[in-house]
Amino acid sequence: MAEDKILLGHGSGGRLMHDLIEKLLLKYFKNPYLEKLTDAAVVGLKNKKLAFSTDSFVVKPLFFPGGDIGKLVVAGTVNDLVMMAAKPLFLSCAMIIEEGFSVSVLEKIVRSMSEAAMDTRVQIITGDLKVVEKGSCDGVFINTTGIGEIANSAELSTDNIRAGDQIIINGPIGQHGLAVLSARKELGFNFKIRSDCAALSKLILPLLDGNSGIKFMRDPTRGGLATTLNEITDRIKLGIMLDEERIPVSQSVKAGCEILGFDPLYIANEGKAVLVVDKSKAKKILARLKKHPLGKYSQIIGEFRKDLKKKVCLKTSVGGVRIVDMLTSEILPRIC
Amino acid sequence: MAEDKILLGHGSGGRLMHDLIEKLLLKYFKNPYLEKLTDAAVVGLKNKKLAFSTDSFVVKPLFFPGGDIGKLVVAGTVNDLVMMAAKPLFLSCAMIIEEGFSVSVLEKIVRSMSEAAMDTRVQIITGDLKVVEKGSCDGVFINTTGIGEIANSAELSTDNIRAGDQIIINGPIGQHGLAVLSARKELGFNFKIRSDCAALSKLILPLLDGNSGIKFMRDPTRGGLATTLNEITDRIKLGIMLDEERIPVSQSVKAGCEILGFDPLYIANEGKAVLVVDKSKAKKILARLKKHPLGKYSQIIGEFRKDLKKKVCLKTSVGGVRIVDMLTSEILPRIC
Repeated sequence: MAEDKILLGHGSGGRLMHDLIEKLLLKYFKNPYLEKLTDAAVVGLKNKKLAFSTDSFVVKPLFFPGGDIGKLVVAGTVNDLVMMAAKPLFLSCAMIIEEGFSVSVLEKIVRSMSEAAMDTRVQIITGDLKVVEKGSCDGVFINTTGIGEIANSAELSTDNIRAGDQIIINGPIGQHGLAVLSARKELGFNFKIRSDCAALSKLILPLLDGNSGIKFMRDPTRGGLATTLNEITDRIKLGIMLDEERIPVSQSVKAGCEILGFDPLYIANEGKAVLVVDKSKAKKILARLKKHPLGKYSQIIGEFRKDLKKKVCLKTSVGGVRIVDMLTSEILPRIC
Repeated sequence: MAEDKILLGHGSGGRLMHDLIEKLLLKYFKNPYLEKLTDAAVVGLKNKKLAFSTDSFVVKPLFFPGGDIGKLVVAGTVNDLVMMAAKPLFLSCAMIIEEGFSVSVLEKIVRSMSEAAMDTRVQIITGDLKVVEKGSCDGVFINTTGIGEIANSAELSTDNIRAGDQIIINGPIGQHGLAVLSARKELGFNFKIRSDCAALSKLILPLLDGNSGIKFMRDPTRGGLATTLNEITDRIKLGIMLDEERIPVSQSVKAGCEILGFDPLYIANEGKAVLVVDKSKAKKILARLKKHPLGKYSQIIGEFRKDLKKKVCLKTSVGGVRIVDMLTSEILPRIC
C-alpha cells in the first residue's frame, strides 16, 4: 500500500477499497468463493446451493427519511442474497452498542428490523451483542449475515454476459445517499428526499427461472451505479454504453447533486438492482418489473458493447460521450 | 427496562445482558430457533442440518499474550459451531475500521485470521469492509459468522440432561480474560498469563457420535464458567454441584484474581468447552480429551443434582458450600 493509514476512502466501495481488498484481504483469504467478489458466496452442500453474505451497517444518522438502520440491515443483506438469485431464509444479527445508548431507541431499531424481516419472510435466528465504552463506537453498529437458498439452476455470472446484452435498473438512482445526507442536519439543507431502502426479494425472485434471460445482477449500493458497472466490466472484456437520458433520476436528487457538486451515478442506492439481460428478453423483463411498486420506474439504461473494451461510457443528454470511471475515494461516508 | 441507558454490563454475558436479550430482542425476534439461545442456530434444509452462528469482536488491545483479534475471530465462531456438534465449513468476515488505522497492523490481523482459518480448515468465503471517521470506532471491530454442518444425528440439548450427569472442562479457566487484562498496560501488572484462545474443532469433533454420551456443550466465554453453568440450569429443573478442588486454575490466574479481587469462575475463556456427559461415559471421555494438547488438563468438575433445583453450588476447598450466581454486570469489558 502507498500509505500505511486507512482512509475513509477505503470504505467507499470505490477504487481504494477494491485495491485494499485485492492487495491485502485476497492475498490471505484466497479461495475460489471469495475471489469471485460477488454479492454473496455460493456454496454447494450435497445437491443444495446456498448463498452466504455479510454486511455491517454504520449508517449515520440511524434514522433517515424512508428508513432507519433496522430496515437497512435487513434489506441490505437480503438484497445481496437476492442478487445471487437466492431466496433469503435466515439472518444473523450482531450488534455493537455504545455505552449510554438509549434503550428505547434500540427498541425502535429492533422493532424496525423485526418488521422488515417479517415483510421479507426471513428469520433472524442467531445473534450477538457487545457493548463498548462511551466514545469507542458511534451509537450502534449492526452486522447481519444471511443464508439464502438458490432454488433453480440459473447460474448468474458475469461470464454469461455478451455484447448486445441490455442493462436495466428498477428506478431512480441516488435516493438513499442523499436522504441520509439530508438527515445529517449539519449540512443545513433538506430536499425531502426519501431513501429507496427496500428488500428486493418480492420484485426480483419471481422473475428468475432457468430461461428468464437474466444473466447477472448486482445492487448499486456504495459507489453507486457507476462503480457497480465498473465492477462488472473489470471482470469481462466488454464495455458499456449508458444512455444518460434513460437513467432515472428524480428532480430532487438532481437538484441536491447540483448544489453539492455530486454526480448521481456515484450516489448509493439501497433498493435498486442492476440487471444484465439478454436483448431478446429485455422488454418482457422491463414490463414485468414495471408492474411491481418497487419496479414502477424501471428503465433499460444501456448495453454491453465489444468496441468499448472494459470501459463504462455515457452518452450524455447533450450528445457527447464521456467515460464513467469507478469512484476513487469517498464522497459520502457512512451512508450504510 | 429500569433505565433507558445501555450500560457496559449489558455486554457482559451476565444477568443484565440476559435481561436485555429476553425483554427486548426476543420480544421482537421471536422464533423457535433464536429462543433456544444456544451457541448457534440449527436449521434443517432438506435432510441437511446446518448450524449458524455470529460473533462481533471488539477486544482491546488487539494483540495479547497467546493470540490476537485475528485468531480470536476464527476460534470464537468456530467454537460456537462446534458446541452445536457442527463441523465448521464457512465463515464470513465483516470489518469496521477506524480512519487512520495502520494498514500494516491490519495486515498482521488478516494474516493471523488466515492462519487460524487454515489450521481449522474453515473457509472465509464472503466479507464486508466499512471505514468510519476517526473517533467513531476504536481501531477495528470484526464480525465473523459461520456455517457448520451437523454430520451425525446426535442432538445436543439441555433437554437431555439428567441427574447424575457429569460436567467436564478441558483445562484451566480464566486464562483469556486475565491475558487480555494484563496486555492493557494501564493496569500496571503483568502476570505472564497466556490466553487459551484456540479453535476446539480438532479436540471435540472426533468425540461426537450418536453414542458418545455427550449431552450438551457450551463454551464459557463472557461471564465465565459460572455464567455458562447458570445458563444451563436456567433452562432445566436440576441444579449443579461443583467441586472447587477439581476446577483447574493456574497459579498465575489465581494470583492475578486475588490481587484484582476477581473470581476465576467469572473470567472469560476462549479455548474451553463445558461438556455435560452421561455418568457412565464420563471417564472414557475424560481420557480421550486428555490425549489431545487442548485437553491435557481436562477435569470432571461437578455433576447435576435433583435436590439443588436450578442452583449452581460450589463445594469449596475449605469444606463449605456456596451458591454461584450468574454474573450480574461487567467486570472485564471488551475481552472478546
